[in-house]
Amino acid sequence: MKILVCNDDGIFSKGILQLASSMSEIGETTVVAPDDERSATGHAITLHKPLRIKPVNLPKLNIRAFAVDGTPADCVKIGYDIVMERDVDLVISGINRGPNLGTDVLYSGTVSAAFEGAILGLPSIAVSLVSYDSDDYVFAGKVAVKIAEKLMEHGLPSGAILNINVPAVPEKEIKGIKTARLGVRRYAENYIKRLDPRGKPYYWLTGEAIDDDMANGDGMDTDITAVANNYVAVTPIHFDLTLHSYIENVNKWFQHSNKIDI
Amino acid sequence: MKILVCNDDGIFSKGILQLASSMSEIGETTVVAPDDERSATGHAITLHKPLRIKPVNLPKLNIRAFAVDGTPADCVKIGYDIVMERDVDLVISGINRGPNLGTDVLYSGTVSAAFEGAILGLPSIAVSLVSYDSDDYVFAGKVAVKIAEKLMEHGLPSGAILNINVPAVPEKEIKGIKTARLGVRRYAENYIKRLDPRGKPYYWLTGEAIDDDMANGDGMDTDITAVANNYVAVTPIHFDLTLHSYIENVNKWFQHSNKIDI
Repeated sequence: MKILVCNDDGIFSKGILQLASSMSEIGETTVVAPDDERSATGHAITLHKPLRIKPVNLPKLNIRAFAVDGTPADCVKIGYDIVMERDVDLVISGINRGPNLGTDVLYSGTVSAAFEGAILGLPSIAVSLVSYDSDDYVFAGKVAVKIAEKLMEHGLPSGAILNINVPAVPEKEIKGIKTARLGVRRYAENYIKRLDPRGKPYYWLTGEAIDDDMANGDGMDTDITAVANNYVAVTPIHFDLTLHSYIENVNKWFQHSNKIDI
Repeated sequence: MKILVCNDDGIFSKGILQLASSMSEIGETTVVAPDDERSATGHAITLHKPLRIKPVNLPKLNIRAFAVDGTPADCVKIGYDIVMERDVDLVISGINRGPNLGTDVLYSGTVSAAFEGAILGLPSIAVSLVSYDSDDYVFAGKVAVKIAEKLMEHGLPSGAILNINVPAVPEKEIKGIKTARLGVRRYAENYIKRLDPRGKPYYWLTGEAIDDDMANGDGMDTDITAVANNYVAVTPIHFDLTLHSYIENVNKWFQHSNKIDI
């Protein structure tokens, strides 16, 4: 099995080194990742400048690795097309420093890299550790291997990926794996107004995440609830944002619309 | 009705001036938009620096307007919280220069601004003109008004917005409004390899959009097909990426998983 490993924290971050090491236990692993941190870039792709591919040595690992001066999605694209010459069986992105839960996945470079894999028609996974402070990615690497094996065994529908979030607690406190839906994470936000030294106002966003999972049921079935209860959350996600259940409904609004009505 | 108008092309782009003008026919309109072009920023939000709000005069329009040195999503957030003091009935974003069709909506600053409205619990619309060359946003403005009125009349489920794409053809060639699903836009891509003056390689992405809408049915029901046939495409979209139909299936993969199995 040929595995393409990517991330958005940069090629020398601890999370990707662990992921590359773990994945090399089950397949021929190649790392193609941004040369620097590219988190919160969403699904950007570089069109207006060329990209460079630079071979790098990963510390203590004997794994082929290439740094690219582009976004996570660029890395998957160019890793697939040029580095691995379209011979890829699995794309896996991470291990992200910090969670990618609920509606926040829309912002995530890590998840976008996995979606890019899905756009290329490949089985793809995003893995995140639910902590900005922990340096211990070993258990999350084990989880990634286990779930990757399950994905290769069972497959997913076209366009779908798995989004994995691993709680940052000691392994013995992990309760198991929970298949979840994305929760809804809102922010209790407001802007603090301050005056600069010249007396002019500026505004700084403040506020905390509120996990508003009650929208559908009791919220017990979300990824946010799962990791809060020390479960590894596995969420099948896809990139079709269409609210299919409502197309027919909206259609009725315009039933008599033609060019004269507009 | 109090209307917040935003975009991602910047506050002085032709599309937002037309949208502000059109919306002012049906409500008290306020423009809060980026001080410069912010397209392809996705759903980024500014956390690590403060924002400035600068009142501006829009050419030939008597409409309140404010430029913000942030992303489209920032503009909606700060427009709602500070400028309009949380007294907003409708958020509308655009008129974007160029299409926001199919899977490309994931990259769009215009669509993200509308999603930010939905996160705030407000009826929200994104409007795009399917041309990078046309300067004529008048008809798209009329369409925006008509569809905004329908949205205010009927409403949408929580978290959903309308994504509108208007063909850039003479009004008399428009066939009507079609409610659509998002198509799948893939790119027939490859990287061209060239050598720089020092003999080192660089890679440039090339390729054309391929509209791969046959994934579900015959593709006649997508936004891409609708605009290609001179219909205004109206697509209800939402930000829940969960592949709900597959949760139970994935769950079976892990039915015997507990901490010992991992």
